Amino acid sequence: MNFDQWTRTVLDRVESALDHYLPAADVQPAPLHDAMRYAVLGGGKRVRPLLCHAAGELTGATPQALDAAACALEMIHVYSLVHDDMPCMDDDDMRRGKPTVHVKYDEPTALLVGDALQSQAFVTLTSEVLDAARQAALVRELALASGSIGMAGGQAIDLASVGHSLTREQLETMHRLKTGALLRASVRMGALAGETPSADALAALDKYSAAVGLAFQVVDDILDVTADSATLGKTAGKDAKDGKPTYVSIIGLDASRALAQQLRADAHAALEPFGARAQRLAELADLVVNRVS
Amino acid sequence: MNFDQWTRTVLDRVESALDHYLPAADVQPAPLHDAMRYAVLGGGKRVRPLLCHAAGELTGATPQALDAAACALEMIHVYSLVHDDMPCMDDDDMRRGKPTVHVKYDEPTALLVGDALQSQAFVTLTSEVLDAARQAALVRELALASGSIGMAGGQAIDLASVGHSLTREQLETMHRLKTGALLRASVRMGALAGETPSADALAALDKYSAAVGLAFQVVDDILDVTADSATLGKTAGKDAKDGKPTYVSIIGLDASRALAQQLRADAHAALEPFGARAQRLAELADLVVNRVS
Repeated sequence: MNFDQWTRTVLDRVESALDHYLPAADVQPAPLHDAMRYAVLGGGKRVRPLLCHAAGELTGATPQALDAAACALEMIHVYSLVHDDMPCMDDDDMRRGKPTVHVKYDEPTALLVGDALQSQAFVTLTSEVLDAARQAALVRELALASGSIGMAGGQAIDLASVGHSLTREQLETMHRLKTGALLRASVRMGALAGETPSADALAALDKYSAAVGLAFQVVDDILDVTADSATLGKTAGKDAKDGKPTYVSIIGLDASRALAQQLRADAHAALEPFGARAQRLAELADLVVNRVS
Repeated sequence: MNFDQWTRTVLDRVESALDHYLPAADVQPAPLHDAMRYAVLGGGKRVRPLLCHAAGELTGATPQALDAAACALEMIHVYSLVHDDMPCMDDDDMRRGKPTVHVKYDEPTALLVGDALQSQAFVTLTSEVLDAARQAALVRELALASGSIGMAGGQAIDLASVGHSLTREQLETMHRLKTGALLRASVRMGALAGETPSADALAALDKYSAAVGLAFQVVDDILDVTADSATLGKTAGKDAKDGKPTYVSIIGLDASRALAQQLRADAHAALEPFGARAQRLAELADLVVNRVS
């Protein structure tokens, strides 16, 4: 199976699993479930589910266990987007090529969709496709990565930074929490869904994730100034307009491109101990760096 | 130990445990952690922690295990209050006798405090004071009770009901989700933190919780029209002003008082199978009905 075929297979599985793990649209309260499904289904690059499935190949995790972990990760990611787009935060009206939840529905619905998706992630992780020990381990990984010392904490630093000039170090700290923590959890949760990985293996995977997470953000910043809104599925040029510090604004476009390639090489290097089994993870590092949207 | 002494002992334990399970105020990002601690510490009736500890006495749960469960429940409850008070929801500026989080800090902070408290609840439940099987079981209880078929779902129904007249049945459905689900989870999680209870025992506890949960709401509605804001620690008369359907508006004040007493009797009856071991749960039903704030 080549990488495209593998990607398509995983994306199909994950889309079905998301449909399964989200409450059906006719379950009460139906309007909330309709909005949750609108936010999650049929869009997005699904980078976290792909990382999770790729890492699971290293430890022989079952596809069913990886689906549950991947869905939980995507639900957390989508909840963060829904809240992040709200008027009191980034106030964005376009996401994944569709109107954002508070535009399509209303603000209270967007707030509750995000809140309920976070809960649903933990419902999903405690499904019977994982045994209790793995459920507990994965819940802890996801909760730490999502919370105040992870994604939500990075969001808080991001908000505090608007209009301020950041050093490159401060920018990295912010992104390590805001997007890096959940990407790292995607890889760790995939690995932990199978045979328990060694501490060395987890450390190597964390190195890989750190490089990929940073590369992801650098490329995001490049695309914000080089791509158009239709391609991105969200408002282009927004960070610059909002006065948000980015890699491009701090080190420039060319240096940002060089940095992304360096991080791709770092990611590949971190995977060396795993040999050919890490092929999908290596290919995903390439995908993250070479993407155009 | 009489009930007052027991209550004070549990509240002291839970306050210390909350202090322990919340990130310290000097952990980065410090402003977010400061706001999380402001929202959670030093206020509230702690009804859910009390129910959790009382139910744990039935199954011999360790106080440490109950503390973790109680803190997770309180974090979920507080996150819901913080989000509920935001301008796009109930727009309230006073809670537990203090300015609400979005007033004291700002709206984005309130959003993130709520989000991060939800994550922190699941971090707390996966502490080593519980074994993996109990961690997994408690996470599932809490996630289901918090999400779209529990608390967040009830909130969605509540919002949709403003300005509409509801039947008493519809009002009960709304409250069974909005406040009932988390109160039920408080009792179940306390019991599940010890020796696994029988299905019959859990069914009896659910009956107790249904009565207490409804009584809690009926008394809330009574207090909204009979108490003042200083006593309540939140804005009195707000439901009536907002055109929200309440027990008092649907069945009247006297019938609401009679209903609360009937529900108290139902709660006591549900506890009969447990005999004297359920003393604290029985006393908590009395507390819920007889409270003045």
